[in-house]
Amino acid sequence: TMFQFVNLHLKRAADRFGGMENPEYRTGSFEALHHPSDDDDDEMVDIAGATLDFSSTDDVPPLSSGAYDEYSSCSGSSRAAGMNGNGPGNLVDPLEDPVPGLGTYEDFNTIDWVREKSKDRDRHREITNKSRQSTVALLHSVSDAFSGWLLMLLVGLMSGALAGGIDIAAHWLTDMKDGVCLIGFWFNHEHCCWTSNETTFQERDRCPQWQSWAELITGTSEGAFAYIVNYVMYIFWALLFSFLAVILVRAFAPYACGSGIPEIKTILSGFIIRGYLGKWTLIIKTITLVLAVSSGLSLGKEGPLVHVACCCANILCHLFTKYRKNEAKRREVLSAAAAVGVSVAFGAPIGGVLFSLEEVSYYFPLKTLWRSFFAALVAAFTLRSINPFGNSRLVLFYVEFHAPWHLVELGPFILLGIFGGLWGALFIRANIAWCRRRKSTRLGHYPVIEVLVVAALTAVIAYPNSYTRMSGAELISELFNDCSLLDSSQLCGYKQPIDYPYWCECKQTLCLIRKPVCPIRNHSVYYPSRFPSGLFIPSMAVGAIAGRLLGVGMEQLAYYNHDWFIFKGWCSPGADCITPGLYAMVGAAACLGGVTRMTVSLVVHHVRADWRLEYIVPLMAATMTSKWVADAFGREGIYEAHIRLNGYPFLEPKEEFEHSSLAVDVMRPRRSDPALAVLTQEGMTVGEVEALVESTHYSGFPVVVSQESQRLVGFVLRRDLLISIDNARKRQEGVVSASQVVFTEHAPAQAAEAPPPLRLRGIMDLSPFTVTDHTPMDITVDIFRKLGLRQCLVTHNGRLLGIITKKDILKHMAQIANRDPDSILFN
Amino acid sequence: TMFQFVNLHLKRAADRFGGMENPEYRTGSFEALHHPSDDDDDEMVDIAGATLDFSSTDDVPPLSSGAYDEYSSCSGSSRAAGMNGNGPGNLVDPLEDPVPGLGTYEDFNTIDWVREKSKDRDRHREITNKSRQSTVALLHSVSDAFSGWLLMLLVGLMSGALAGGIDIAAHWLTDMKDGVCLIGFWFNHEHCCWTSNETTFQERDRCPQWQSWAELITGTSEGAFAYIVNYVMYIFWALLFSFLAVILVRAFAPYACGSGIPEIKTILSGFIIRGYLGKWTLIIKTITLVLAVSSGLSLGKEGPLVHVACCCANILCHLFTKYRKNEAKRREVLSAAAAVGVSVAFGAPIGGVLFSLEEVSYYFPLKTLWRSFFAALVAAFTLRSINPFGNSRLVLFYVEFHAPWHLVELGPFILLGIFGGLWGALFIRANIAWCRRRKSTRLGHYPVIEVLVVAALTAVIAYPNSYTRMSGAELISELFNDCSLLDSSQLCGYKQPIDYPYWCECKQTLCLIRKPVCPIRNHSVYYPSRFPSGLFIPSMAVGAIAGRLLGVGMEQLAYYNHDWFIFKGWCSPGADCITPGLYAMVGAAACLGGVTRMTVSLVVHHVRADWRLEYIVPLMAATMTSKWVADAFGREGIYEAHIRLNGYPFLEPKEEFEHSSLAVDVMRPRRSDPALAVLTQEGMTVGEVEALVESTHYSGFPVVVSQESQRLVGFVLRRDLLISIDNARKRQEGVVSASQVVFTEHAPAQAAEAPPPLRLRGIMDLSPFTVTDHTPMDITVDIFRKLGLRQCLVTHNGRLLGIITKKDILKHMAQIANRDPDSILFN
Repeated sequence: TMFQFVNLHLKRAADRFGGMENPEYRTGSFEALHHPSDDDDDEMVDIAGATLDFSSTDDVPPLSSGAYDEYSSCSGSSRAAGMNGNGPGNLVDPLEDPVPGLGTYEDFNTIDWVREKSKDRDRHREITNKSRQSTVALLHSVSDAFSGWLLMLLVGLMSGALAGGIDIAAHWLTDMKDGVCLIGFWFNHEHCCWTSNETTFQERDRCPQWQSWAELITGTSEGAFAYIVNYVMYIFWALLFSFLAVILVRAFAPYACGSGIPEIKTILSGFIIRGYLGKWTLIIKTITLVLAVSSGLSLGKEGPLVHVACCCANILCHLFTKYRKNEAKRREVLSAAAAVGVSVAFGAPIGGVLFSLEEVSYYFPLKTLWRSFFAALVAAFTLRSINPFGNSRLVLFYVEFHAPWHLVELGPFILLGIFGGLWGALFIRANIAWCRRRKSTRLGHYPVIEVLVVAALTAVIAYPNSYTRMSGAELISELFNDCSLLDSSQLCGYKQPIDYPYWCECKQTLCLIRKPVCPIRNHSVYYPSRFPSGLFIPSMAVGAIAGRLLGVGMEQLAYYNHDWFIFKGWCSPGADCITPGLYAMVGAAACLGGVTRMTVSLVVHHVRADWRLEYIVPLMAATMTSKWVADAFGREGIYEAHIRLNGYPFLEPKEEFEHSSLAVDVMRPRRSDPALAVLTQEGMTVGEVEALVESTHYSGFPVVVSQESQRLVGFVLRRDLLISIDNARKRQEGVVSASQVVFTEHAPAQAAEAPPPLRLRGIMDLSPFTVTDHTPMDITVDIFRKLGLRQCLVTHNGRLLGIITKKDILKHMAQIANRDPDSILFN
Repeated sequence: TMFQFVNLHLKRAADRFGGMENPEYRTGSFEALHHPSDDDDDEMVDIAGATLDFSSTDDVPPLSSGAYDEYSSCSGSSRAAGMNGNGPGNLVDPLEDPVPGLGTYEDFNTIDWVREKSKDRDRHREITNKSRQSTVALLHSVSDAFSGWLLMLLVGLMSGALAGGIDIAAHWLTDMKDGVCLIGFWFNHEHCCWTSNETTFQERDRCPQWQSWAELITGTSEGAFAYIVNYVMYIFWALLFSFLAVILVRAFAPYACGSGIPEIKTILSGFIIRGYLGKWTLIIKTITLVLAVSSGLSLGKEGPLVHVACCCANILCHLFTKYRKNEAKRREVLSAAAAVGVSVAFGAPIGGVLFSLEEVSYYFPLKTLWRSFFAALVAAFTLRSINPFGNSRLVLFYVEFHAPWHLVELGPFILLGIFGGLWGALFIRANIAWCRRRKSTRLGHYPVIEVLVVAALTAVIAYPNSYTRMSGAELISELFNDCSLLDSSQLCGYKQPIDYPYWCECKQTLCLIRKPVCPIRNHSVYYPSRFPSGLFIPSMAVGAIAGRLLGVGMEQLAYYNHDWFIFKGWCSPGADCITPGLYAMVGAAACLGGVTRMTVSLVVHHVRADWRLEYIVPLMAATMTSKWVADAFGREGIYEAHIRLNGYPFLEPKEEFEHSSLAVDVMRPRRSDPALAVLTQEGMTVGEVEALVESTHYSGFPVVVSQESQRLVGFVLRRDLLISIDNARKRQEGVVSASQVVFTEHAPAQAAEAPPPLRLRGIMDLSPFTVTDHTPMDITVDIFRKLGLRQCLVTHNGRLLGIITKKDILKHMAQIANRDPDSILFN
């Protein structure tokens, strides 16, 4: 299957770059270093359509990439060696020219946040220092300072425009399933009838220009045959759209599948998945999102919009050196883009910012908070001026309730919270079990057929009932409805004659029960799925239906039993004291909360329309209950569960490390393992170093004073070491296998006939992080999380003892939780 | 003066606990260790009324405090030595009994976040492990898990109730300046007339039960004499209230002065100021806040409400062992309390949470986000049910604008932003200069007279004009007014006859110009001041006036020149295209932003009432401009400026460290200093250790393997060391000056006649943080900030070289900025 296919590739990549059989800290094989790593995240996708093989780019020699020269010419070459993150200029060997590829990362590796941020500070410092010298440099400094805001503006504009386009296109294609506009097939139903002058306001949906398929084919819109023609056409279009979507994803951008949020979370935490946010992913995701939404499956476009916004941000980052060249800075922009995605999906800029803060982001400084708010605003404004919903409200679910709620109703609200929590826990379990099954059995071998079968089934079931036929978002709007006198919803049909015995609503709501069966099927199957889809809308739909049902139940109860003691005093006979729309909203929030474990941002999402304090309380009560209930069954939200399923190296920032292990229990080498592979700061030859590197697969090597003392000097990354030696052999005269490798500041005295030493102090990290062997793991995990470390060295009484990597920590955690420690695939 | 008085005491305390003449890392004098440190933050305030001398509690012997026993009986004594933060149980010497005072802090010291959090995790782990054994323990575990929420509920209820009480009392006292209610003096004007049945709705303000002072004294409310009597009584009451306020603060709670936000920021960053959040501060602050607001000075109660909420939280923390005993956990609660304070001040729960996140908090995990939101909601709800404003809106400034704004208006909005930024920069400079002056000259010696003079002047100026007489908040509401047909504000008098030539508004607004002169005087003088006051309302008032003026100017311009090209197309003749109320709101946000440098939370504050996207844009534009303009004149907001003025050890989390120094440049000892004072893990006697401790003033000592190798083993805090030795001498037999002090796991072999060794491994921090000497300071500062460190050891090639404390970093930063490094008073 497509998913398995991608996963297989990830695994293959991991095998090539590290391997599974050896549980040690290691990444990056020798030959992989010839990979140019020109920081272009598109590279994998550029070849995705062709072979999807990583090796196809391996034959590009490292020097052919001009990226590094560009960087050094831009930010000045005087501190080029400062790319190593921590050594100031004077510690760098002056003989050493800047070497391309130094300071970059392999695919499927974790970045070093400290190094990246330090790099950016160096760059900033240099620009500031230069700005005092000339006006041009001053202007450069000012433009550098504002480039972040400019980038945010562009991200907002682009995401807003794309979201608007997606909305319009999805609307058009959805209408296409029903019929076609005779004036031009590119008009949707509403637009088609706008241009018609012949219709009255009441009849605006029935203009002669718009013809259903039955009318077009059989000439009549009445009768069983016409119904069947419409039915068949509906199914045909649904199948066509889903087929196109799955084929496009399969052929051009396998990364465009699923909602993308688990991967974005992982990327934001510092992982590198090249091409995941590239231009092909963006194009294919945008197109297939439209197709998927139009096909009528119970899918949301909210999660994917986050992915789309992040793709935009990543692509726009290439316009600014500051962001193109720095993985940490780019992740700040991506955090803001996640906020933008939610902002355009729900029309809630503040909700988006809180979503990014609460759910997606890993490193979220205050600067990013301001910028994401700005970008979210710009995007919401852009979307508003495109005006896809035809009203100027921009908000998807605009509701106003006419009645307040009573304290007694907190009971049902908390019940809804419990339902939401149970639903969330159940959904996550079912979803993960299904995904595992699909991975391990033959079920996953026929992705196209699977999609088509489900699409056909959904279309067959959905067409006859108007509630199942409408899109998830429309259904939710309908359910949130307040049923005041102005509303035209069919759900509120009993309102005009106020004593109408509520039967009608009952019947209508009961038909909806069929619907929950459908989303469960669909999103268990489709998330993460063969094509872009989110789970926001389906989860909310389930919750909204449950909430509405409970609300109607309560309403009836209050109507017939207004003398019960719980209703006494606030519910007079015949009055309308329960608002089922509010129940639907609370239920939607509870279910979404149970699945994603968000709280505050959820509440803010829902409340934006009607900013009254009293409606926050039910939402808060329900989401908190939902979170607690769901947490009792398992601490992970759906995104974390998928991250774990895919084996990404993600260190959950919310959860505390609860066990009393010490660093010495987690570090490598273990007691039975061979001693730690270290380099000495002098005395080793190039040949010895190469032999050591080739015989191991570790991603880096500590440098010590001597094998006897084991006193730590620094840390060298495998990739940097290999690139430097390779480069020196090619470009520096006299470097042979017998040359001494020197990490000290001053080269030691040598015999006259000896070859000149290779000085590598410049590539050594002079400030590796260390903890003592007695450091409790809770503190160590805290350090890893807060500083964004990739590895940390362990010492005992000043002697180097071992190393802990992020992967070691995750494996240790998996072991404690009785999970397979080898499920963590990447470092 | 009172302020200087307090500051003097802080300085005296610092001198006693560390001293200024020695720039080294040191705190805690020997005799101060007898201080019981029973974690009761009230202790300083309990004695504040009496002597304000720290030494008065010094004679309490450490063993008389039962706090520790209570702790160990509560959380189980098996891991009591785990209080040292990092050693698991088996590393603790089993001979050692728990010693009271271990793991606590001196006043005016910085806490160790890592140790505190680790302590809490240990506690939590133990409860979790126990919960598997018995039902009682399980219940304890559950109640422990929910105690945080319960505490939040209590904080919300208490703060909301207090805020309601303050509102009601201030309302009553403000009316008292005008007259008295004959039914009962405890009724305010409005309430007095509610009970009267004789008045019509229109005349509800003029009921016979309410008598102005002139009516009561002279029997008539007309004529010059009555006016003078009212005038004099007004001034009398204003003077009386301010006199009472300043006397109360002076006598009982010197910490109750000022807005308190700078100190709360410092406390949240990990500093300890005992009594600052104690019960006396709470009581006095509440009372004097009412008096200060009622006295008619241009002061806000918003900042002080944050202080009040934090006092509530701190006091309520004493109910829960989890929070009473852990400084880090308590600070989480205080962060939430800051959100509560703003929530009740402005009726904006989300604004409050963002304020706490953006402006006040240092460590704000997601858990705290949820809890602060909950507490803020509860508080807002409580306040609403008290209903101090007499409407159910709860919001201070409830506005609805009837007209949208045009893109052209962004120009004036940005102008307002520039004004706000300039005003903010100017205000901060003037305020700091004034405070410095008051500290250094005779000006500060007569606090009571100063307050009375300003109060009298304000009253004299304010009485004749109805706009200057109303409180700041009322004035702002008036200025925000939209002037739609329903409004009754005098500012909108020109509305009914639509072509009324706008003169009236002009005249009325011009009278307001007098007002800005007044706030400038007042809050330059009064912040931080002799009695509780905030700067939210005064800053907003200045901005609102400027905004309204500009708005009216624009309105006139548009009215008379609607054919200008900038007005063409959107402003038809005679129409009402400019909303001066919106300008006032934008101006208020800009000025407050310039002073405090907030952005997002400000925008959210203002927008809550009318949640329409279009009004966010002007606010955003103005606050961002204001921040940029103000930042160009100085990066610090008013709170940071005051923190610096007072010399608190606060490491700004928002600002990047911009310089290229290395750890070796900042660490102590400097090249010329004597070598670092270290302990060796064995071989030193009790007498030698005591001599070393007494001859230095360092707050802690590294433990090394031997003087020759300088290989680091651990770190011992001075306080813990002294308490342990003291305790061992008293309670452990055979410990004399010649006893060996042993930090190793196993005691070394000794001669048979030697006294038994004193084993102190239990109090040693086995995982001290280290950086290498080559670590750039930007990374080091990042580590300090993110992990909340107190000190960090510096190594070179595995040998101990020196130490960096928070104070060293702050001094280094001050030096770089050409400020006096000795301005940092505390460690």
